[in-house]
Amino acid sequence: MKALRVNNNRVAVEDISRPEAEGECLVRVELSGICNTDLEIVRGYAGFNGTIGHEFVGVVETCDSHPEIVGKRVVGEINAGCGKCDRCMAGDSRHCPARTVLGIHGRDGAHAEFLRLPASNLVAVPRTVSDIEAVFAEPLAAAYGIGEQVAIGAETRVAVVGDGKLGLLCAMTAELLTKEIVLIGKHPEKMSIAENVGIETVQLENANPLAKSFDVVIEASGSESGFATALDLVKPRGKIVLKSTFQGTPTWDAARVVIDEISIVGSRCGRLAPAVELLASKKLNVEDLVSDEFNLADGVAGLEHAGRRGVLKVLLRP
Amino acid sequence: MKALRVNNNRVAVEDISRPEAEGECLVRVELSGICNTDLEIVRGYAGFNGTIGHEFVGVVETCDSHPEIVGKRVVGEINAGCGKCDRCMAGDSRHCPARTVLGIHGRDGAHAEFLRLPASNLVAVPRTVSDIEAVFAEPLAAAYGIGEQVAIGAETRVAVVGDGKLGLLCAMTAELLTKEIVLIGKHPEKMSIAENVGIETVQLENANPLAKSFDVVIEASGSESGFATALDLVKPRGKIVLKSTFQGTPTWDAARVVIDEISIVGSRCGRLAPAVELLASKKLNVEDLVSDEFNLADGVAGLEHAGRRGVLKVLLRP
Repeated sequence: MKALRVNNNRVAVEDISRPEAEGECLVRVELSGICNTDLEIVRGYAGFNGTIGHEFVGVVETCDSHPEIVGKRVVGEINAGCGKCDRCMAGDSRHCPARTVLGIHGRDGAHAEFLRLPASNLVAVPRTVSDIEAVFAEPLAAAYGIGEQVAIGAETRVAVVGDGKLGLLCAMTAELLTKEIVLIGKHPEKMSIAENVGIETVQLENANPLAKSFDVVIEASGSESGFATALDLVKPRGKIVLKSTFQGTPTWDAARVVIDEISIVGSRCGRLAPAVELLASKKLNVEDLVSDEFNLADGVAGLEHAGRRGVLKVLLRP
Repeated sequence: MKALRVNNNRVAVEDISRPEAEGECLVRVELSGICNTDLEIVRGYAGFNGTIGHEFVGVVETCDSHPEIVGKRVVGEINAGCGKCDRCMAGDSRHCPARTVLGIHGRDGAHAEFLRLPASNLVAVPRTVSDIEAVFAEPLAAAYGIGEQVAIGAETRVAVVGDGKLGLLCAMTAELLTKEIVLIGKHPEKMSIAENVGIETVQLENANPLAKSFDVVIEASGSESGFATALDLVKPRGKIVLKSTFQGTPTWDAARVVIDEISIVGSRCGRLAPAVELLASKKLNVEDLVSDEFNLADGVAGLEHAGRRGVLKVLLRP
């Protein structure tokens, strides 16, 4: 089968054997989405070698342990825990120290014709959710999960820093919880997507008057300067949600964090099932975030395209 | 009256006029305590010029607005808000943007024969609490307040990084909430104070095996490396409480914060009344933390002594 693979920072579509299920489920991938993390992995982040990709929708091809789900259309939780440690026993395999992560750590990923995952990781997708919508389940879960970590009510004033795919999803999901939401970015063409659904946007260079005015600031820019911007924007006793994994060791004004008693909350993945429910509710339109679709065979070109300025979600079809 | 004052990084005991009450209360200082923040102010932190000191116990000398408290022994909340802004109206004058702070910002402090504070800042001290105990009310409130920002239950595993005055107070107050508490420091003579009340201690260089094992890590070392240590020690999904204001912009492994979904909680002051109640309960012995007492006239020598390795609380008596 074809798979988009990284080997020591070189990326290519290769022909490899189908994965063996080995007690897990084999999923035929219908569509996969390119995430910025894929681009970072190609640059060497996480030291991963193998098939990349962790956003997908597919159909269960084989599943010995749960034959009833064969033929079902599914998305998947990307972390697979050991099933035995304290974390896994407490139901939190996302933080199992021995976990593998689809297309990121110790487990081949989704930019391929087939992938494997444990049956417990799969979430069925209702008919009313399109393939293009379903492929957003994973990043949408990451954005929607913020509401489980930080209280956002109708009066909570929220800023999102970063107008990329993740920033837009964060703004669109936060807007379901509060109307006091501002997206701060650099790219008018991306911000217009948020404006179309009624979200206020502000160009980064005009954000100074908003200093210290937000209860919650979601940092989704993936840049070191994004954290400094978030720290400027947050109120005393406010919360910064760090959403994007960026490499490097940014500097920060720790004194402001202490004096103004600010909280910084790291946030990675969210639960898939609520994200699928949200897609089924049709309360937000993720299809606006798709820039282009490539055939998996042209996956390298798709990756390159996804890295270009102004490009949002790029999909790969096996 | 005598007052220990900073003028452009030079510190001296000066003879100045008694403060005018100007609608606030005049307090005759009985005893004041030297905090590390005082030492940092002398080095230029906060750009403060004036009388330093913010830990005190005294007797109300005059108070036109509340004559009933004249003659009462009191300690004081050090932040004085404008009384008119949203923060003050919400009862949180500690974060009033126009606040003054006793001996730190815009308001002469406690290393003096007299100080002034608004009546609403003063908390009466019961007879059963000694002057030496009462002078710890402010730093004890800062330590005890952690329990209001972060949930600490009997099963919560807590580490305190830093064995100075603040670290010891944090460990002693956390120990009232959980028995799963470890103090990590460098100075055996300081750590022995914690050991005497049954707190486990570990030398910093032996802390590696404790990596990722604490639900809550309280950073009270005041050093940039202390934050890196705290980040090593905290569990996935755990919380770091940043307790000490240090200058500088430390670097940090932001990727770990995101991937392990760690929260960082800035923490400055706490409420005085619960700290006074705690002192009255005699559940902890703060007098062990006193190294020496100087006459206010020898305040400069007291400051120098407080900055020496191994020295804990130094008191000044007017």
